[in-house]
Amino acid sequence: MQNVYFDNAATTPMRQEVIEAIIEVMNNNFGNPSSSHSFGRSSKSLIEKCRKTIAGFLNVSASEIIFTSGGTEADNLILKSAVRDLNVKHIITSKIEHHAVLHTVEALQKEHQIRVSYVNLDEAGFIDYFHLETLLQSEEKTLVSLMHINNEIGNILDLKRVALLCKANNALCHSDTVQSVGHFKLDLREVPLDFLVGAAHKFHGPKGVGFAFIRKNSGLKPLVLGGEQERGLRPGTESLHNIVGLEKALKIAYENLEKETYFLRDLKKYFINSIKAEIPNIKFNGASFDKEKSTYTLVNVCLPISHEKASMLLFQLDLKGIACSKGSACQSGSSQNSHVLAEILSHEDLKKPSIRFSFSIYNTKEEVDYVVGVLKELI
Amino acid sequence: MQNVYFDNAATTPMRQEVIEAIIEVMNNNFGNPSSSHSFGRSSKSLIEKCRKTIAGFLNVSASEIIFTSGGTEADNLILKSAVRDLNVKHIITSKIEHHAVLHTVEALQKEHQIRVSYVNLDEAGFIDYFHLETLLQSEEKTLVSLMHINNEIGNILDLKRVALLCKANNALCHSDTVQSVGHFKLDLREVPLDFLVGAAHKFHGPKGVGFAFIRKNSGLKPLVLGGEQERGLRPGTESLHNIVGLEKALKIAYENLEKETYFLRDLKKYFINSIKAEIPNIKFNGASFDKEKSTYTLVNVCLPISHEKASMLLFQLDLKGIACSKGSACQSGSSQNSHVLAEILSHEDLKKPSIRFSFSIYNTKEEVDYVVGVLKELI
Repeated sequence: MQNVYFDNAATTPMRQEVIEAIIEVMNNNFGNPSSSHSFGRSSKSLIEKCRKTIAGFLNVSASEIIFTSGGTEADNLILKSAVRDLNVKHIITSKIEHHAVLHTVEALQKEHQIRVSYVNLDEAGFIDYFHLETLLQSEEKTLVSLMHINNEIGNILDLKRVALLCKANNALCHSDTVQSVGHFKLDLREVPLDFLVGAAHKFHGPKGVGFAFIRKNSGLKPLVLGGEQERGLRPGTESLHNIVGLEKALKIAYENLEKETYFLRDLKKYFINSIKAEIPNIKFNGASFDKEKSTYTLVNVCLPISHEKASMLLFQLDLKGIACSKGSACQSGSSQNSHVLAEILSHEDLKKPSIRFSFSIYNTKEEVDYVVGVLKELI
Repeated sequence: MQNVYFDNAATTPMRQEVIEAIIEVMNNNFGNPSSSHSFGRSSKSLIEKCRKTIAGFLNVSASEIIFTSGGTEADNLILKSAVRDLNVKHIITSKIEHHAVLHTVEALQKEHQIRVSYVNLDEAGFIDYFHLETLLQSEEKTLVSLMHINNEIGNILDLKRVALLCKANNALCHSDTVQSVGHFKLDLREVPLDFLVGAAHKFHGPKGVGFAFIRKNSGLKPLVLGGEQERGLRPGTESLHNIVGLEKALKIAYENLEKETYFLRDLKKYFINSIKAEIPNIKFNGASFDKEKSTYTLVNVCLPISHEKASMLLFQLDLKGIACSKGSACQSGSSQNSHVLAEILSHEDLKKPSIRFSFSIYNTKEEVDYVVGVLKELI
């Protein structure tokens, strides 16, 4: 038996270079970045260097990057402040967003009586851009929140089209880009988003750190109150070593993007071909079989087996050392089915087990062979 | 010239054992604690082990510890939810709290029309317990938020007295214990607080991680929405390595508490005696000269020099390699004076420079000699 980690959309192992960068900071820099003495200034300058690197990759100003504890906090900061401080009265989103967006929008609807519209989805999980355009014909101040890459089925949104539609209709545009930062180039001069978020642990960085991109002069205000850190937008002593780890991980990711994308596209294709060959009648959820319309990092399959066999499947895979998931990690402890698949699968397919396999550069074709072999055996 | 770090109330260097514990996790555990497979379970069990250790030191249940990104977030979570979800209509606090409490209370007052009472302070910065008792005679649901140890002047609150007063008057009791966790024993069966908060970087742990103690069945709800992490109270993938670092730091702190307290009491006494001997007319702000009524980790002095000399003082100390601060780090970048000293000092003393020197076990008497020598020279 071997251990195979095919759950990289949940979280990724840290790169050795990232670990080393974090260790260096832990050993050599401990000043509070808000302190005015040399210990503090040295920490502050590290953070500002990181901010600049990250801004550079997104083609934005350093002052538009705000470090947070992760993607969830960043999503909450943006959505809540947009309603509270920017007078947003209408949010357009979709039913297959991450819970950090969905639950926040639901709470805003309840507490602030805003209007929420869900854009129509086709059966592959793509939004109806014409419906979005119709929804945007709204008198109220509107914010659109649509994720770039769906964390469960991997579908890629045409972010530029959405951002331009928003711009044309005078709406604010936010995207949960947690699955795309570090995996896809995002040029925010080309794609006129107002807000996006990233989380380091999705691209081989540390857990517990992320960032929000907040377009200059947006008027956003902090979610949490306290000190003046992060230009007054996010108080609390900065997680210096984590921020350095985030920067390092993003830098390596983007510097090796072409090579690693190539490797992962090939691995995904190999997985798809192997599993199709070994398991007849397997289905691919969303667009995850489509190499153009879905991310190269994951596949989501619906297995042709009975309900009885299905219930034990993840458990059996785990016994064989295989890590994968039925949906996002945030729900995996619960017995609930995926809210994403519930929106797009037929009643019949929803009864069958669906599994997400998500890859990283540390995976191999041998691991694919092993996993497909085990799956075949179990089915 | 040597480098002397006397700003440990702003943040502390990490202990080597803490760094090692973090490195081990970064190298060996990366699963998402919410994942149900073995990688996830291994991370989950690490977190639960940490939660248990921390709970043990506070004499509470593990389920009452909620990990956050730090003290600020934990304070916000508690205060905001108390008003929103627990129907608190009246908050009693003091004018010398940390901004994480003060600014949050001010915002709650504005947004939720709650009543805010500030308890009277004497000129040493101690609260008037009788005034507190009077303020507690309130019909509205009341929450008291008073910090255990003041981060600028070091005054120790009689936390047990406050907690018992709250209990007797059916009020909720919260304390920002960021400066006391890891430095003082807190037995929450003895001291019936409802809520407290801690931040790892104040006791030689990592930056960007802390916790809230939230008494069972409090009814508190999350500040940030998303996944089901931390019993639904704090979503977002947990900062696993930071949580392990927090636990390790707290463990070492409490296991060596007696020895280290002894060392630091002695160092503080040495500092006080030296500075008194070398700088006539020096004053000690708050109760920071009093070894019983103030923490052993810091002194705050008011220097007998003119306004002209004062403005350059921190800068000159920095040039001599000495790190200290005029107030909390969160404000040190700003030119504002300390809101704490503004409450307790005379108009005349407020014009003179006040400096906080805060110590850790990594400091020495030789460093004290150097700092006092430099100060004498500058004055």
